[in-house]
Amino acid sequence: MTEFHTKRRIEFADVDQAGIVHFSRFFVFMETAEHEFLRSLGTSVHTKADGKEVGWPRLNATCEYVSPARFEEVLDIQVSVFRKGKKSMTYEFLFSRGKDTIARGRMTSACCVVEPGQKLRAIPIPEVIASKVQESIVKKG
Amino acid sequence: MTEFHTKRRIEFADVDQAGIVHFSRFFVFMETAEHEFLRSLGTSVHTKADGKEVGWPRLNATCEYVSPARFEEVLDIQVSVFRKGKKSMTYEFLFSRGKDTIARGRMTSACCVVEPGQKLRAIPIPEVIASKVQESIVKKG
Amino acid sequence: MTEFHTKRRIEFADVDQAGIVHFSRFFVFMETAEHEFLRSLGTSVHTKADGKEVGWPRLNATCEYVSPARFEEVLDIQVSVFRKGKKSMTYEFLFSRGKDTIARGRMTSACCVVEPGQKLRAIPIPEVIASKVQESIVKKG
Amino acid sequence: MTEFHTKRRIEFADVDQAGIVHFSRFFVFMETAEHEFLRSLGTSVHTKADGKEVGWPRLNATCEYVSPARFEEVLDIQVSVFRKGKKSMTYEFLFSRGKDTIARGRMTSACCVVEPGQKLRAIPIPEVIASKVQESIVKKG
Repeated sequence: MTEFHTKRRIEFADVDQAGIVHFSRFFVFMETAEHEFLRSLGTSVHTKADGKEVGWPRLNATCEYVSPARFEEVLDIQVSVFRKGKKSMTYEFLFSRGKDTIARGRMTSACCVVEPGQKLRAIPIPEVIASKVQESIVKKG
Repeated sequence: MTEFHTKRRIEFADVDQAGIVHFSRFFVFMETAEHEFLRSLGTSVHTKADGKEVGWPRLNATCEYVSPARFEEVLDIQVSVFRKGKKSMTYEFLFSRGKDTIARGRMTSACCVVEPGQKLRAIPIPEVIASKVQESIVKKG
Repeated sequence: MTEFHTKRRIEFADVDQAGIVHFSRFFVFMETAEHEFLRSLGTSVHTKADGKEVGWPRLNATCEYVSPARFEEVLDIQVSVFRKGKKSMTYEFLFSRGKDTIARGRMTSACCVVEPGQKLRAIPIPEVIASKVQESIVKKG
Repeated sequence: MTEFHTKRRIEFADVDQAGIVHFSRFFVFMETAEHEFLRSLGTSVHTKADGKEVGWPRLNATCEYVSPARFEEVLDIQVSVFRKGKKSMTYEFLFSRGKDTIARGRMTSACCVVEPGQKLRAIPIPEVIASKVQESIVKKG
């Protein structure tokens, strides 16, 4: 299984009135970690297919909140490829602070062509991304 | 089952580079709809228990994205109480635009006392909220 | 002078750890009020010029914070056209709650053609917007 | 003059429909850079005075946008103390990408005691912050 780790420090604007990270922010954290993972493979989420922009609209996203995180704390975020489909990708995320689990997330996205004013159209994951991800899975094996 | 409807117009800041509502925004939309639902019952998410602030940290949140939403569109948001526990509440949300389903969400929150610098502590849902929600469930039969 | 009023209820995600609306949110509030103003004139910020998307990148934005706003409060937002240039527009905003001034903002935006992968290019404000705004200024005298 | 530099990579959620960083995000970037600056001095924005939480509500914030920034770009953010008052602080920010200036910002904040349910009350900047900032100004000469 692929495993990528990154870190993120909680910013003031991430935190709500109860003094804990607002639950919606974890979805942004997941997305950014996903993009860092792709950059770590030498590719980017921001690719083209036949000269057209490729986007990754979410099919579903879920997060289980185990323990709250607070301002200025540094979280470890583990990214795993749960499933690489032909036209979609599912990632899993584990947020932790030291030995404490903070949250667990999962996100499935469709690979689509994004054209202004057009409907999103699912396409096979571009080779430049698919091969790198596949390679990372094999390596960690 | 309780059913509450509200509407929300997509703002420019809700939309991402692909021209569609960023997936993380739906979680904010759910939360705000939840709070509107509680206000519609004549209560508020913002209550006190024994003089202390009551908060609702999320236990889990999930969203399935069916069809994209775009700038200036008006979404209908249906809020349903899926389960009213003793110390937690689960809501379901249905986002639609006309006859099109846009997204479906679910969110479970724990009722907690929030004290600055203290751990969150789960408590029974304050009567002022619990009774109103119960009543709304009965009414709708 | 043009004057348009709208209302906005503070959402939980607008509020920070200190229990007050995060200062960055006022800029989103201004933008949304600007767009509501344009809709009230029967036009939209989302127009095309020669078949190309028109956008309004900000040249500058400023806000003076007079008094804090809190969760669930309803703010009145007054939008005024401070200056309608040939290729830019300056709006002023006054946020208040009852008789209390909450904040004052100002924002200047350039009217630009937005083409994917191209530099933003300033253009004269499309007639469909310019005329409506002009008319609104004359009306209010 | 104090000068502190930090870097920030533009995230997908920072970018709007026009493909450029949403103007409101620069205010969050400024705030986070301010907090990094304070940590670099060995202190934190998150302090107590007489056992009470200290917060820094903004008095005003302004940003001039010179050139757009896009997804995945890395910005350099320079933080300067423009003025250290007795109860307030004014910072200036310069955003650049290589030799290109992206934006310039300024922000003045009041040092306040934040008590739940109480009015914000301005207080002298706690010594633990004031002395460190003063020292950083002297050092840089």
